[in-house]
Amino acid sequence: MDIFQFNEVSYGYTKDKPILREISFSIREGRKTAIVGANGAGKSTILFHLNGLFAQQQGDIFFRGQKLDKKLRKELYQHVGIAFQDPDDQIISLTVSDDIAFGPVQLEISASDVKERVRKYTNLLGIERLLTENPSELSYGQKKHVTIAGVLAMETDVFILDEPMAFLDPYGKERMTSILQLLQEQGKTVIVTTHDMQFVAEWAENVIVIHQGQCLGTFQPRELFGRPDIMKQANLTLPPIVELMTAIWKGNKEEMPIRVEEAKKWFGT
Amino acid sequence: MDIFQFNEVSYGYTKDKPILREISFSIREGRKTAIVGANGAGKSTILFHLNGLFAQQQGDIFFRGQKLDKKLRKELYQHVGIAFQDPDDQIISLTVSDDIAFGPVQLEISASDVKERVRKYTNLLGIERLLTENPSELSYGQKKHVTIAGVLAMETDVFILDEPMAFLDPYGKERMTSILQLLQEQGKTVIVTTHDMQFVAEWAENVIVIHQGQCLGTFQPRELFGRPDIMKQANLTLPPIVELMTAIWKGNKEEMPIRVEEAKKWFGT
Repeated sequence: MDIFQFNEVSYGYTKDKPILREISFSIREGRKTAIVGANGAGKSTILFHLNGLFAQQQGDIFFRGQKLDKKLRKELYQHVGIAFQDPDDQIISLTVSDDIAFGPVQLEISASDVKERVRKYTNLLGIERLLTENPSELSYGQKKHVTIAGVLAMETDVFILDEPMAFLDPYGKERMTSILQLLQEQGKTVIVTTHDMQFVAEWAENVIVIHQGQCLGTFQPRELFGRPDIMKQANLTLPPIVELMTAIWKGNKEEMPIRVEEAKKWFGT
Repeated sequence: MDIFQFNEVSYGYTKDKPILREISFSIREGRKTAIVGANGAGKSTILFHLNGLFAQQQGDIFFRGQKLDKKLRKELYQHVGIAFQDPDDQIISLTVSDDIAFGPVQLEISASDVKERVRKYTNLLGIERLLTENPSELSYGQKKHVTIAGVLAMETDVFILDEPMAFLDPYGKERMTSILQLLQEQGKTVIVTTHDMQFVAEWAENVIVIHQGQCLGTFQPRELFGRPDIMKQANLTLPPIVELMTAIWKGNKEEMPIRVEEAKKWFGT
């Protein structure tokens, strides 16, 4: 089932510079979805529509088959959590602990439940030792962890993460990948924007390709990497493993390894 | 020749939480140098010392063999340009054009020279169409381009870029890699912090590994990837191509491909 459907949606800050241009696409519930495209293609603007922060100027958006009107748009934050690209846009409290608790407190759950959620997601993100720190004094990567913990603590059905891997160290990236995996196993819909094409290969089930405010299609990663026309038009490049395998692969394209582990296996290790 | 030398340098915001702990290392002039390490390891703090923004609390720093005193530290910005991790910390003007001109104007060169530099570095970064925009309204990746153009326009001998690849789309990353290559060919010293280990493999000559405010050593990329002890201690992971090659390589470790093009060549394409 589609959790989101965009029908010819347009949006622009000024009339002569549209960001989204009659864009149509849909996102399947429970599917690990990556949104890719060049800087300025309109990815973040799409995310703001998914969470009800922005209202489209033209076209229709459906959430679980229901057309988004003003009322439903305002309720959307209860179903859809979003971690912005820039954590500074989202940090509001003076301690990490309060910052993570901020969202759950809005949900009118008990104080002990709020506390339990803060504990749980702090552990999951591995930031226990930051709890009493002032988030504004943390490094960018640490802030990113804090805001993502805060979003997860809302326990919504849909999680949207705008560039979750940016500024994370390799260990942080591995941890984030496991967290995304875990969320999907719990039946959540996880939607991620990223420029990290190897991550797309390793993680995504569906890839939505955005170019100049329009959608060039939804692909499985392997399928996308086999479409040089789309890759070129959207200014995408192949991830390292796929670039290598594409150069040496003689067999059936559908069986070509695109992930590190697949490639290792194929080489017989 | 060493352009920078750190001798047991310490620095901390508070006494009980040191960021740099008697750290010693040196950076060769003209060498493409990557500084790697986990979030919070102290990388950005090192960069702020390289450019004279921070003064060490203990130990000595040498610039081209000369010990940094208060006077030399204040002059350092004329030799060392820095692009911060977060472009919002660096954007000060209301148009992209003024923002890029800001640095060169301080150099007391002629107005036409300033104009020429803005044109040159705007072209180099491919952001001509943004010149009249308000930088604060741009996307993160675009802001990153603007601040880097502004730093390059200073035409210093040393360029320090803190996470230049973060938030750049694949095409932007390729362009940035060529720019870094070009700078080095001009004899500049380029120092980059990054979490992108494949980029380290493709670009760096020397890699300085930072862990909890100390230096675990300076390595060539191939040498570092062959040191699981150092990789593990610094929470680093192998880049995709190196992870694959390490699993399948039977030959002399020193000849193992670590870059995409090397790997392609080895597989005979």
